[in-house]
Amino acid sequence: MSKKLTSRKEDYSKWYNELVVKADLAENSAVRGCMVIKPYGYAIWEKIQAELDRMFKETGHQNAYFPLFVPKSLFEAEEKNAEGFAKECAIVTHYRLQSDPDKPGKLRVDPEAKLEEELIVRPTSEAIIWNTYKGWIQSYRDLPILVNQWANVVRWEMRTRLFLRTAEFLWQEGHTAHATKAEAVKEAELMNNVYATFVENFMAIPVVKGVKTDSERFAGAEETYCIEALMQDGKALQAGTSHFLGQNFAKAFDVKFTTKEGSQEYVWATSWGVSTRLMGALIMTHSDDNGLVLPPNLAPNQVVIVPIYKTQEQLQEITNLVNVIMGELRLHNITVKFDNRDTLRPGAKFAQHELQGVPLRIAIGPKDLENGTVELARRDTLTKEVIAIDNLTEKVKGLMTEIQTSLYQKALHYREAHTTEVDDFKTFKKVLEEKGGFISAHWDGTEETEAKIQELTKATIRCIPMDENTQSGDCVYTGKPSARRVLFAKAY
Amino acid sequence: MSKKLTSRKEDYSKWYNELVVKADLAENSAVRGCMVIKPYGYAIWEKIQAELDRMFKETGHQNAYFPLFVPKSLFEAEEKNAEGFAKECAIVTHYRLQSDPDKPGKLRVDPEAKLEEELIVRPTSEAIIWNTYKGWIQSYRDLPILVNQWANVVRWEMRTRLFLRTAEFLWQEGHTAHATKAEAVKEAELMNNVYATFVENFMAIPVVKGVKTDSERFAGAEETYCIEALMQDGKALQAGTSHFLGQNFAKAFDVKFTTKEGSQEYVWATSWGVSTRLMGALIMTHSDDNGLVLPPNLAPNQVVIVPIYKTQEQLQEITNLVNVIMGELRLHNITVKFDNRDTLRPGAKFAQHELQGVPLRIAIGPKDLENGTVELARRDTLTKEVIAIDNLTEKVKGLMTEIQTSLYQKALHYREAHTTEVDDFKTFKKVLEEKGGFISAHWDGTEETEAKIQELTKATIRCIPMDENTQSGDCVYTGKPSARRVLFAKAY
Repeated sequence: MSKKLTSRKEDYSKWYNELVVKADLAENSAVRGCMVIKPYGYAIWEKIQAELDRMFKETGHQNAYFPLFVPKSLFEAEEKNAEGFAKECAIVTHYRLQSDPDKPGKLRVDPEAKLEEELIVRPTSEAIIWNTYKGWIQSYRDLPILVNQWANVVRWEMRTRLFLRTAEFLWQEGHTAHATKAEAVKEAELMNNVYATFVENFMAIPVVKGVKTDSERFAGAEETYCIEALMQDGKALQAGTSHFLGQNFAKAFDVKFTTKEGSQEYVWATSWGVSTRLMGALIMTHSDDNGLVLPPNLAPNQVVIVPIYKTQEQLQEITNLVNVIMGELRLHNITVKFDNRDTLRPGAKFAQHELQGVPLRIAIGPKDLENGTVELARRDTLTKEVIAIDNLTEKVKGLMTEIQTSLYQKALHYREAHTTEVDDFKTFKKVLEEKGGFISAHWDGTEETEAKIQELTKATIRCIPMDENTQSGDCVYTGKPSARRVLFAKAY
Repeated sequence: MSKKLTSRKEDYSKWYNELVVKADLAENSAVRGCMVIKPYGYAIWEKIQAELDRMFKETGHQNAYFPLFVPKSLFEAEEKNAEGFAKECAIVTHYRLQSDPDKPGKLRVDPEAKLEEELIVRPTSEAIIWNTYKGWIQSYRDLPILVNQWANVVRWEMRTRLFLRTAEFLWQEGHTAHATKAEAVKEAELMNNVYATFVENFMAIPVVKGVKTDSERFAGAEETYCIEALMQDGKALQAGTSHFLGQNFAKAFDVKFTTKEGSQEYVWATSWGVSTRLMGALIMTHSDDNGLVLPPNLAPNQVVIVPIYKTQEQLQEITNLVNVIMGELRLHNITVKFDNRDTLRPGAKFAQHELQGVPLRIAIGPKDLENGTVELARRDTLTKEVIAIDNLTEKVKGLMTEIQTSLYQKALHYREAHTTEVDDFKTFKKVLEEKGGFISAHWDGTEETEAKIQELTKATIRCIPMDENTQSGDCVYTGKPSARRVLFAKAY
């Protein structure tokens, strides 16, 4: 198997694209910009889904399902939201094909089957959902509504990349309705925190929590909370967003409720989402030139066992031992696979599991049988050790935690080493060029300055961090007063 | 709460529509023929999904995800399949909206953003998937491929009904690829058996396993296996299908593999699916004039506890007791909800839980506290009993099994009472008219006779059952020779 990857140093972007395909995570499809998520990639996504779903339910949310299509008249009701997504909409205009009279065996759109009103394939579901909530909400007793949906959405992006930016992607979108502004703001913050906890603890990716500037805010939101992560090439990646939508959608769809006191008020809203983009963050945070590196929490197989044998008798002996080992590991909720394929040599198996990021590989050969040992190989550090088989289960359990923690620490260390406080624009450009990463700098708060800096450097304000670092200063570009530092970076 | 339903006798169809909406399962949306699945309905669907997903994985399948869109040129590649779905396709023709110059604040389709090739919103995914498999399959070593997808699909039906027939619906679709015909046939049969086991054991709905006639077969299949259930109005409902696709898609997409012996052969295929239609089957099999009746396996809350109290002190005492009860029940994996809302009276709560089909209701009042008792009310039988609290957990555990079994038995009894062997056409019409249900009759095997019977009676051949009843006879309509009885019924 010639699965050697381009190195990150050589061409980071090529490395990423090759890795996604060679590790069997996803591939491009026959539909422009749409991907096929392959079984191994989807198994990781299922782990992401399961844990997030658990966290959503623990915080009181329920799942539901709303239509894929949004009638144009609903789509355009909230003007800012409509404007924000209008340029990247897939639009259904007809509902029937017919035989093509000019081309036997071919079909064409039936010109008589034109829809009276065009349907937009949802790029996000605020419009269709708030039009539905109108029927669900009469009184304060009907609030809050805490609903989430797992769905596919379509945004007709011109430049696409597997997982990071695709015309169709999978995501969850929470849509909540509240009686008060304070409650809605609290919900938006809560869900941003849920995302941060998930991405840090489960995906081992450190994130900065913050809010977006006006220009980077979600179309139709009053405040966008976000979590930002730093990739190994020094570029930032927005890993999740949570929006306080104010009463914008309630007003657009006329959703009022009767308060306890009997008055009529518009409902307050939030929405929040993460997508298959998280797969891109996962890959680019941890992986190396040998392939994918998976934190144990997300690995479809946490441990793989490879037998080394020459005779069928040896294989049988190893298999007997492996059955005992697997039974024990599974008792401790460790997922383990015995790779006993007879079509591949051990070396090829090692290479494949390395490429696919299996956290821990156990090799067992005839000498191990004699000595009562096994060989352990850690994917993250690429280190090997031979241990006594008696300690195996405890050792593996310990390593699962250790690898998970170590990956997080490594990524955190990288981010810390690539977050630079900068106070003049010359240094800003130099740091951005030579080192990349987050630049913590003062900004005068205007869209003009933000746009100018982007024009000159391609860096955008990733977020205004929600941290304690709130000293005032002078804008790195204009020198005008700045209330606090913000985080700039080039971004995915 | 005026939630009284129309009775089944009065108007079965109206009863169904009211029940779906009033029990908070689903509702119509602003998009013609598309439904909103509400949280309570979706929670039932999640239980269906979870169990099926487990069963698919146990039989060696993995999940993946393929694009929502099918380019027209791929869609039409397998001619029969294309022909079968051409008349009900939603078609994307454009990818951008723009401001409408004639209507300020409104949007219109940008005429310049026309797609070069139209995209069909998948009505089923054979085409896009086989086009993908072409890249995955070179040799016999790449086979079998055992993949399933959970997805939404769109079929532009003209007459829609919540869950039973909607323009968009949720489903799973398995798509497998095999080296031999025998293996593919075995897979198609296996998955039909998985469906039967699931629907019978988990949903408590008895089914007949069979194969479809030529005219009812899936477009593009060589054999369609199915499970057919009987609803309370005597109409049949197709609950799941599994197709042996032969080499049709392999030929249409030129998917060949190198055999062990070195020759090139086309790959053999199956596909199989069940959808949110199962929700319709669930509702119509078990529910009554008071509302939904849920088998414990599918109930989001298997048990609900309602406190009866006048004073806050009483409520506190009851709450303390309920906490202990819930802890115990949960230890036995029974899902239980304490309905302590102070905005509703107990009677209203009883009515709601009855309408929503909670299998078991526990009421606890001051007298129960004195006597060490609770009142149990079974939803399926509408019977009540007072029992000593000491026996509660065992009693509830027993009832969960008993209700599950009893619902199945009741439905089986209904089906048996509504399956009639008929040997002449006059009786055929009379039974169909007066009693409904399945009619087991001889058929001469021709499409003409099948069509004629349908024209005269609206009954179709639901399936050729896979049972032992294979005696020959004379066609109920033409009198011509018939190899075996088949099942006729009016159907959803």
